[in-house]
Amino acid sequence: MERTLILDTVKKAGEEVLIKGWVRTRRDHGKLIFLDIYDRSAVLQVVVNAKVSEEAYKNALSFSPQDAVEVKGEVKKRPENTINKDLKTGEVELEVKELTILAKSETLPFDMGGKDLNLELPTLLDHRSLTLRHPKVISIFKLQESIVDNFRKIAKEFGCTEIFTPTITASATEGGADVFAVDYYDKKTYLAQSPQLYKQMMVGVFERVYTIAHAYRAEPSVTTRHLSEIVQLDMEIGFAGFEELLDDLELVGTTILKKAAEENKEILSIFGVEPPLVPNKVPRLKFRDAQKIITERTGRDLSKEPDLNPEDEKEICAWAKEVHKSDFVTITHFPTKKKPFYTMPDPNDPEYSLSYDLLFNGEEISSGSQRINELNMLTESMEKRGIDPKKFGMYLQAFKYGIPTEGGFSFGLERLTMKLLKLKNVREASLYPRDMERVDERLSLIYKKEPKQ
Amino acid sequence: MERTLILDTVKKAGEEVLIKGWVRTRRDHGKLIFLDIYDRSAVLQVVVNAKVSEEAYKNALSFSPQDAVEVKGEVKKRPENTINKDLKTGEVELEVKELTILAKSETLPFDMGGKDLNLELPTLLDHRSLTLRHPKVISIFKLQESIVDNFRKIAKEFGCTEIFTPTITASATEGGADVFAVDYYDKKTYLAQSPQLYKQMMVGVFERVYTIAHAYRAEPSVTTRHLSEIVQLDMEIGFAGFEELLDDLELVGTTILKKAAEENKEILSIFGVEPPLVPNKVPRLKFRDAQKIITERTGRDLSKEPDLNPEDEKEICAWAKEVHKSDFVTITHFPTKKKPFYTMPDPNDPEYSLSYDLLFNGEEISSGSQRINELNMLTESMEKRGIDPKKFGMYLQAFKYGIPTEGGFSFGLERLTMKLLKLKNVREASLYPRDMERVDERLSLIYKKEPKQ
Repeated sequence: MERTLILDTVKKAGEEVLIKGWVRTRRDHGKLIFLDIYDRSAVLQVVVNAKVSEEAYKNALSFSPQDAVEVKGEVKKRPENTINKDLKTGEVELEVKELTILAKSETLPFDMGGKDLNLELPTLLDHRSLTLRHPKVISIFKLQESIVDNFRKIAKEFGCTEIFTPTITASATEGGADVFAVDYYDKKTYLAQSPQLYKQMMVGVFERVYTIAHAYRAEPSVTTRHLSEIVQLDMEIGFAGFEELLDDLELVGTTILKKAAEENKEILSIFGVEPPLVPNKVPRLKFRDAQKIITERTGRDLSKEPDLNPEDEKEICAWAKEVHKSDFVTITHFPTKKKPFYTMPDPNDPEYSLSYDLLFNGEEISSGSQRINELNMLTESMEKRGIDPKKFGMYLQAFKYGIPTEGGFSFGLERLTMKLLKLKNVREASLYPRDMERVDERLSLIYKKEPKQ
Repeated sequence: MERTLILDTVKKAGEEVLIKGWVRTRRDHGKLIFLDIYDRSAVLQVVVNAKVSEEAYKNALSFSPQDAVEVKGEVKKRPENTINKDLKTGEVELEVKELTILAKSETLPFDMGGKDLNLELPTLLDHRSLTLRHPKVISIFKLQESIVDNFRKIAKEFGCTEIFTPTITASATEGGADVFAVDYYDKKTYLAQSPQLYKQMMVGVFERVYTIAHAYRAEPSVTTRHLSEIVQLDMEIGFAGFEELLDDLELVGTTILKKAAEENKEILSIFGVEPPLVPNKVPRLKFRDAQKIITERTGRDLSKEPDLNPEDEKEICAWAKEVHKSDFVTITHFPTKKKPFYTMPDPNDPEYSLSYDLLFNGEEISSGSQRINELNMLTESMEKRGIDPKKFGMYLQAFKYGIPTEGGFSFGLERLTMKLLKLKNVREASLYPRDMERVDERLSLIYKKEPKQ
């Protein structure tokens, strides 16, 4: 008998079907047992009635949550008054004839049957291979998939070619210190902090590119919004100046979140969040003007600050929401010396740069700039920051051969997911988050087992 | 004046347009200069006539290949006898009024104007940021993009969720020796050899998953078909047994190559290769039977061999082509002891395993198996291979909680691209290939500049 996907049972009332999936919950009521069984498509109420099959009833008594099972039975329309509108399959149920455990689960260390898991983050992560199975947790990653799909879609509409850039690099990508070193045969190499340099090089090849890339940051601090390994959604656009890049950034950023929200209303409602407020025109502020607004609102003097801190980001987002009915705000013209070497200084005021951040719901979700596209200017900018151009030979080679005005931006996928669902910690938006203290298991646990290597 | 994409000039005969792009070639004929200008959409013949604009003509004399330029002019229908059917824009040309260099290129170290580059591989890679701009080289990566798109498409049709798996791992993924170590804060971690373990863990969450992941192999040898960093297309399918997995593997493998070939006929013709021969039913052979066929054809005794070597793969593919008119052949039941710990032994003959390779055009392009999905069997299989289960705590956790019969397969993206275009070396199918000797530049060159770190 061929397997029926659970969602398809809705169309099969009166028919006998075979379903496969996992037990979510079991409720016993005398000689009746109710099982919620789920597969990749949906969840279904399964009724085991001793009067229908005594054998099935006896079998079902051994069923427990997370068992992988297969069940044969007849799909029945539920009486009007027992229809469950919260379920896609709420109009039907399965009257069981036969059921089998395919793979038995151990007893769960905590209840997985509720709407929420209600676990502290360390517990959630210590049991990650189990807690990921909770429907609310699964939905985070279904939304994440949708964000990526929408990014790809708009990137293709922009005429971008998808590229795959290497993550093992000979030099620290942006010349920073926070890189992981790799033993590469008998040499030292590094994990790329971003696909930045490669996507720029590819402007000379494909003109417009996008990539979904892993990026690595050895930040020796534990915050709610940083991970040591992330997924980045990157775009780079040739023959584009500053204003066009800003338009592109805002269009891409608002579109992917708006579309992901529209396509996943159910998930947003599980998390009790509203779809993003997208104005006709995202408010744009120069960095110094944003600071002035924050000062007016809070009294804090920011005139010596070279960047926005998390509190500033929250404040300027609150302003954008109040004044412009927008969950988004773009900040431009950050101080040049705080930006990476490839950032183009503003020709009218070189102390500031043609850089931009897109903020959403209180936090930066994207960063980018127009780039320096002229070889000498680029090597000078490197040297000014103490970076040796000789270590970036292949990167600089691209700029010998006609790289036009260009720029781009990138989004952190986990950050986007976190902000859209208003999760408290970015770790919740990574299947298996990496940080200073954890690589799947807590490092302190893994490494106590044996002498330090 | 707004920019017109070069491909769109075809519809604009008689109109004045502004194009932006790069100079591919320049040919001077007295007071006429012909430029081939390309952007991301197409290439166009641009005619600079001193009689139309003396100033434009003088400017054009300074144009050279790879200059990024912008050109204004009138789109003209070409006379019937000068139509170039090899170009998408072959029915028109641009009569120039004004032209400007946006970014000047240095003199090229070799001619980039021909149909082929004709460079030795080391030269091709030493100048990678330039040689990638050659149209034939670009087309390799356009085809690669199409392979990935088709993989995603069929994975979605299969009901797979896209996942993003970490590449920094606490243990060598498959327990092997060929891993790169990473200095992770004050601990040692490793670069994942594949997303294998994570995709298996995710069967318990999403039932069916796919991922496009970087994988790392510290293979201390230089061959034409191995890289140190690759992109893998991975799929994993829950509630599926061996026969179903084989059907899925063959459907996915043949579909992505067939579709990529159909959608890129022009690229295949640039490389002078035929689309893949896909039979109604891909021939399937058990490993030992494949060996027997090879022995019959070559006289080589393989009865002691535990695997197929590259020569064997070529021979059995030749057989499939001759006997089954197929560029594909599937080999199953490889010896269990040669396969990774998670491979399910054949219950009827445990010396052999429920494993499979898909071969195409003389080489393995995909490998996979039904997996061991039972916890005790899994830890036993690890111990038999000298792998400490304690190091795989998070992986094994997943198997405590009901993982059904499952399996999957993975494709190396660079290998697929190489085999479809019959490239001689897999490095040609990687934008910036990593191997023992090269990370962008040759390591011997990078590291001679300073004492070994």
